Amino acid sequence: MHVLIIGAAGMIGRKLAGAISRSGKLGTRPVDKLSLIDAVTPEKPAGFSGAVTSLALDISDPHAAPQMLAHRPDVIVHLAAIVSGEAEQDFDKGYRINLDGTRHLFDAVRQLSLTNGYCPRLVFASSIAVFGAPMPDAIDDVFLTAPMTSYGTQKAIGELLLQDYSRRGFFDGLAIRLPTICIRPGLPNKAASGFFSGILREPLAGKPAVLPVPDTVRHWHASPRAAVDFLTRAATMDLGPVGHRRVLNMPGLSATVAEQIEALRRIAGDSAVALIRHEPDPDIMRIVSTWPRGFAAERATALGFRAESSFDEIIRIHIEDEMGGAL
Amino acid sequence: MHVLIIGAAGMIGRKLAGAISRSGKLGTRPVDKLSLIDAVTPEKPAGFSGAVTSLALDISDPHAAPQMLAHRPDVIVHLAAIVSGEAEQDFDKGYRINLDGTRHLFDAVRQLSLTNGYCPRLVFASSIAVFGAPMPDAIDDVFLTAPMTSYGTQKAIGELLLQDYSRRGFFDGLAIRLPTICIRPGLPNKAASGFFSGILREPLAGKPAVLPVPDTVRHWHASPRAAVDFLTRAATMDLGPVGHRRVLNMPGLSATVAEQIEALRRIAGDSAVALIRHEPDPDIMRIVSTWPRGFAAERATALGFRAESSFDEIIRIHIEDEMGGAL
Repeated sequence: MHVLIIGAAGMIGRKLAGAISRSGKLGTRPVDKLSLIDAVTPEKPAGFSGAVTSLALDISDPHAAPQMLAHRPDVIVHLAAIVSGEAEQDFDKGYRINLDGTRHLFDAVRQLSLTNGYCPRLVFASSIAVFGAPMPDAIDDVFLTAPMTSYGTQKAIGELLLQDYSRRGFFDGLAIRLPTICIRPGLPNKAASGFFSGILREPLAGKPAVLPVPDTVRHWHASPRAAVDFLTRAATMDLGPVGHRRVLNMPGLSATVAEQIEALRRIAGDSAVALIRHEPDPDIMRIVSTWPRGFAAERATALGFRAESSFDEIIRIHIEDEMGGAL
Repeated sequence: MHVLIIGAAGMIGRKLAGAISRSGKLGTRPVDKLSLIDAVTPEKPAGFSGAVTSLALDISDPHAAPQMLAHRPDVIVHLAAIVSGEAEQDFDKGYRINLDGTRHLFDAVRQLSLTNGYCPRLVFASSIAVFGAPMPDAIDDVFLTAPMTSYGTQKAIGELLLQDYSRRGFFDGLAIRLPTICIRPGLPNKAASGFFSGILREPLAGKPAVLPVPDTVRHWHASPRAAVDFLTRAATMDLGPVGHRRVLNMPGLSATVAEQIEALRRIAGDSAVALIRHEPDPDIMRIVSTWPRGFAAERATALGFRAESSFDEIIRIHIEDEMGGAL
């Protein structure tokens, strides 16, 4: 099977490509060809026995998608996006990449579908940013999308297009709305959500971290490992039981910051917790107050998607996958 | 005030232009200039004391929107669309007009907003076609959009864009989801929903009509007069109380076909009802079974939007507005 990952240089893209390379499989299905695309040339993962192509392309260029599809990938995982903050700052760029880029991809698949019956599986990484306040504590599977950012708007539009193109039979699509991924590896970034990872990742490494919101803030989390599992399942599962509503809220863990911190204390002790400095930031608090606190992800759960059930588990996954298994 | 109606040659556009022309007002606000746009040159309504421009433009042409906006209309009512059946048959045309045309309009307003602070009221006629089965008997104000047609998809995308552009301050937008308009004047058409009007309009004129579905079918209706009232209110109301969710399900009347027929009997007698021939059409039945049956339009009702409360009233409006007041 040939797998195309668009947005392969990002954190989740790299983890997915790495998992495929190590196992030679996507789920239980053997992979012999891997195509990696991003705005910068993605690093080729080590240890893959099949063929790997790695290419820098601008998905907002209408010529990019036909090039990506030249060798007819069986599975397309579309992760590429201008992130929330940047799409808010640069209106044109966000629409150009997140909306036009996605539409160019879908239309290029459609052209191949019309001319030679091509019909790949297409997995679109959407986001809980499609939701906006006011929201219930547990958002159910029929709650409206009312995004409060351009990024969320662009993701919600991508979902609608994916469903219409799937209904028409141009491809076999599934959009999954990912929780906030925690613990994000790497350096602290300036995303408003960055502290959810930072207050665990930095103290686990013996470094200080800043908490800009009260510890009563509740949010919806899943590990990077869960995200790779979600994408793998979405890319390989039978979509018959999904029906025509091809958008799923992924399961996750609804937890307060205080619950995150207590899990850190259980695993890394009081000294780790002492590295967290409370420094309220009204701007971040205002943004975070508009985000989902939890979901009743019943459809996805019934379809076999699973996330972590405690923050202890999320921290242990970080220690295993990013810190060589020990503090 | 200068009012621009895009899609002014359609049934609702003509009625709205006619109402403005007769009263010289949109709601309570005096109108001195009316610009009418459609794919064919809209007829100029009689009796308007102000200036009227009437122009044929293709809204999918990026040059059309700047031309429409040259004289900075204060209110833009965007009704233009490829209808459901045609958007389903001609995929490219539907997306070109309903999505690209809408986006060109929004972007042209945005450009003027950025360059000279232009910020018109923009009313977008959306549709209950944004909803898809399964649905509750009464759809509430937080139910998901899950369209089952390309037309519904394009309308749902227009709503998302309108909300993002409004949030950004490029215009002051409101999208209203119109019920099925009943009784549509004019000749029978081939729309799958045509019979809802036909089984009343034709017998009221002494002509036979075909009913292709069982009389237990329930649907969501409002009169053409209510549609003009909805648009007028949307174009002139204070949007402060609407908040950032700029899409409203319009009120309407949830009625079965049997209830429609009994209203016809009360107003026009058994002889009119006898003109309805039951001729089941499985294709139409299948389409109709995926449509909304009713709404709990609480937000719109709280904001003062009103529809009819009986089919007797809907029939009387048709007799007053289309038949000179008497059978």
